[in-house]
Amino acid sequence: MFLLADDSISAARGDRAEELDTAAYLPALKELMSDSSNEVLLVVDEVDEPVATMQLTRIPGLSRRGATRLLVEAVRVCSVERSSGIGSAMMRWVITTAAATTGAALVQLTSDQAREDAHRFYERLGFVGTHRGFKFQVE
Amino acid sequence: MFLLADDSISAARGDRAEELDTAAYLPALKELMSDSSNEVLLVVDEVDEPVATMQLTRIPGLSRRGATRLLVEAVRVCSVERSSGIGSAMMRWVITTAAATTGAALVQLTSDQAREDAHRFYERLGFVGTHRGFKFQVE
Repeated sequence: MFLLADDSISAARGDRAEELDTAAYLPALKELMSDSSNEVLLVVDEVDEPVATMQLTRIPGLSRRGATRLLVEAVRVCSVERSSGIGSAMMRWVITTAAATTGAALVQLTSDQAREDAHRFYERLGFVGTHRGFKFQVE
Repeated sequence: MFLLADDSISAARGDRAEELDTAAYLPALKELMSDSSNEVLLVVDEVDEPVATMQLTRIPGLSRRGATRLLVEAVRVCSVERSSGIGSAMMRWVITTAAATTGAALVQLTSDQAREDAHRFYERLGFVGTHRGFKFQVE
């Protein structure tokens, strides 16, 4: 929760780190932990404080000749640790180790159009921004 | 396979409807059918010929206050049936019925930057193109 709130775009979407909000996140966390297609990864520092997180979803599919995809969501690095190389190490681990372990031929993610630094970061790692990401808010 | 090949962008990515290619798709289809987070929907015409397909993946998550997402992939409508209203009926069903049934607060998809007609189509349905979609090809 702190890592979500420690990001101006997420905070604007309602992710604040307030005690009363815990109830909104706990059921989602329980479901995530029991779901074999989803993993939430947490990076901690030397005193076990969380400094970064991300969610990976393995998605089998038919297109691109039956390719399995690895979807990356909710990449968040604590503001004081940004530009320290943690994000880059996490993403390199995804496109090498995690992709190989899950048999994924494609790693994909979307990033808010406003996050221009993040776009350059993904491009440096070899991602190509070929797509436009659309969202439909149900409620 | 025919629906994937009946699309110039997919065909360029290697999705052709050739008999020998069946082996590439069958394991993916089997895995999809046994995975409770994923559904592949097939729309057939009055003589049971497939005319459209799409894949839905239900993804629990922490961001946006623990929101569950419904990811739409591989929306394909047979070329002779495009502009017939099938795609629009499918997407309206996703953002109403499927989202409610799966408890999703957000429906999301990415569309190739080259598919400008598709972007206008999604915007008419109420989708907002706030994100950029990045892909990393593992092989």
